[in-house]
Amino acid sequence: MSEVSRERFVSWFGELAAIGHSEGGWNRLAWSPLEAEARAWFSRTATSIGLEVQQDGAGSLWAVTDDADRGPWVCTGSHLDTQPDGGAYDGALGVVAALEAAASVLESGAGRRHPLAVVAFVDEEGARFRTPTFASLALTGRLNIDHVLEVMGDAPAIYGVTRDSLAQSRRQLDRVRCFYEVHVEQGRSLVDRELALGVADVLAPRQRWRVEFAGEANHAGTTAMLDRRDALLDAARFALAVDEVARARPGAVGTVGRMEISPGSTNSIPGHVAASLDVRALELETVDAMVEELRAGFPGAAFGRESHNEGARFDDRLRAQLFAAAEARGIPAGDLPSYAGHDAGILAGKRPSAMVFVRNPTGASHVATESASEGDCLAAVQVLTDAVCGELAGD
Amino acid sequence: MSEVSRERFVSWFGELAAIGHSEGGWNRLAWSPLEAEARAWFSRTATSIGLEVQQDGAGSLWAVTDDADRGPWVCTGSHLDTQPDGGAYDGALGVVAALEAAASVLESGAGRRHPLAVVAFVDEEGARFRTPTFASLALTGRLNIDHVLEVMGDAPAIYGVTRDSLAQSRRQLDRVRCFYEVHVEQGRSLVDRELALGVADVLAPRQRWRVEFAGEANHAGTTAMLDRRDALLDAARFALAVDEVARARPGAVGTVGRMEISPGSTNSIPGHVAASLDVRALELETVDAMVEELRAGFPGAAFGRESHNEGARFDDRLRAQLFAAAEARGIPAGDLPSYAGHDAGILAGKRPSAMVFVRNPTGASHVATESASEGDCLAAVQVLTDAVCGELAGD
Repeated sequence: MSEVSRERFVSWFGELAAIGHSEGGWNRLAWSPLEAEARAWFSRTATSIGLEVQQDGAGSLWAVTDDADRGPWVCTGSHLDTQPDGGAYDGALGVVAALEAAASVLESGAGRRHPLAVVAFVDEEGARFRTPTFASLALTGRLNIDHVLEVMGDAPAIYGVTRDSLAQSRRQLDRVRCFYEVHVEQGRSLVDRELALGVADVLAPRQRWRVEFAGEANHAGTTAMLDRRDALLDAARFALAVDEVARARPGAVGTVGRMEISPGSTNSIPGHVAASLDVRALELETVDAMVEELRAGFPGAAFGRESHNEGARFDDRLRAQLFAAAEARGIPAGDLPSYAGHDAGILAGKRPSAMVFVRNPTGASHVATESASEGDCLAAVQVLTDAVCGELAGD
Repeated sequence: MSEVSRERFVSWFGELAAIGHSEGGWNRLAWSPLEAEARAWFSRTATSIGLEVQQDGAGSLWAVTDDADRGPWVCTGSHLDTQPDGGAYDGALGVVAALEAAASVLESGAGRRHPLAVVAFVDEEGARFRTPTFASLALTGRLNIDHVLEVMGDAPAIYGVTRDSLAQSRRQLDRVRCFYEVHVEQGRSLVDRELALGVADVLAPRQRWRVEFAGEANHAGTTAMLDRRDALLDAARFALAVDEVARARPGAVGTVGRMEISPGSTNSIPGHVAASLDVRALELETVDAMVEELRAGFPGAAFGRESHNEGARFDDRLRAQLFAAAEARGIPAGDLPSYAGHDAGILAGKRPSAMVFVRNPTGASHVATESASEGDCLAAVQVLTDAVCGELAGD
């Protein structure tokens, strides 16, 4: 058994949390000098425990044991970038947990039949260019390279990433045997269930739509109520309907986060509204049914699908390892679906993958008030370490 | 009796309509080269019928008969500026109608006991700097000069308007005996009532509010429906409630024309929404009651009043002249409240004022599809001319 070190974990987490921290939160945006500073810290720290750091064609950093050429790697990690004024844990916790797991494993001298790699993916958040899970999409050959280079301009060049290197980055997938990611929960489900940890079962399927409502722009003073066609009234009914169709289905969520109102002046009746729709549920059929109900309820609206993700199932064998480790350590854990995109969710389609979520008392995400207790974080690191140990020793 | 000339009116209207016309509509924004071109056309045309053009301290043009010093002027006119992609009639019709009335009166040799002035007010629309009825506010001493100079920067200087000239412009009010304004209707009330003309009885009182709804911004995927405080849902209920409280009161209108949603991303639950509220009715008490009902219905919202206008009554004597002229000419006319701001509405508080609205088949306003038939326009010009003739000859 490899026992994790509280002191080392706390010290490393504090070092990383000092980078890009200001009053409003953490700002280590992808492809920025502050993310670069965090990457330098990652390389220094990984090297200090005997790992060798390589960069793949997409810009992700892989810190590997000295038997890297022996076969595919047992991988764990997360990302170093944050949202603007993001939290301390999202991404960072998974990277530090992985480093601590590697340090514990190496320190313990536990037997290994496979190399071990700690990965720091680049640009998971996609906050600057709407390019979330950039690196894992590149790794799995699903990145639209023409599109991202167009919207990102010179940004990837900061780490030497080019069109050619991006095209080659999918070769790195051959080196991945499986992947574990520790992550702070982005809601309050574990708090409500009194569980320290959640082991992801599914990545919830998601659809995003642009829904447009047409009315007739006119003067807000001189147009009688009976002569109006106010597009905002339909959009308002739609926002309320989205809330209703989601609440009617356990485990579903539905959100209107944006509305573009034209002309958008105090003195004008709205003639056109474009609303965003984001719908997620545990089953693809539920997502489809919600969208169908909304389309049927608003036959005059124009629905255009902007993106969809069919979701993923996390690996049952890896999940069983994690539950066994938690049980052996007496740590309360349960199944937890993931409703957000993660590199582990992208990888799950190609390699056995698993995620461990850590209880978040505030339930907040992508803001500075995101939280996790030291005890819960250490519990996650220990469970990760035990599972990785088992996997390293297995066939 | 002075008979108006169809040919002259149509020719002048066409000349003015050629200035600033493009595919999307008319663009003679205040303090712009295209408004300046329209002003040059106005001066040429007024001079050609023997009027002398003066500019007041606010930048408005007054074309006066040669007896200008004999006493206060019988005034008629409107404005030359338009909304962005505005219509052909708003403002322009009132200016051309006034020029045609003046030409007819002078041509007929009808007796005059007072000077006659045709006025082209500057910046009635306030489209560039949110400074509507700029010139009539200056004329009546109600313009906030510090504020407008701050928001308008160098714009007024195009016509030589300065802080000092603005401060002096209220002296021009001493020269105004009364004011008539012809204007295209900005709704479909006259169409529905089968009337060619409307004679304004009241300027509807108006209030504008900024109404803020607070929720909690959070992740659109990972925050369960039960854990949400979505500010947009309250704002949506509010928009629907505004519609309801207005429909419940005859003659009232209520509009939410803008919403600023924060954070305003597809992936975020709205944490804050600021909505605009515009409420108008025939009676001040009705406006107050609508606002009170909305405040009571949304106790959690923060209401901040941005502006209010207590409305005005147009002059009964001038209104009687206009109705008598319409009846004598066999033109169907009726009372019509005005729900929009007009220079005549501002002047009504200080000098006898009247407005004649012309039937607008589309009911559209501030857009290129605004309309009026040649016959209805000429009917308005003839009624204006007859009323002005009577006023010029009176005590």
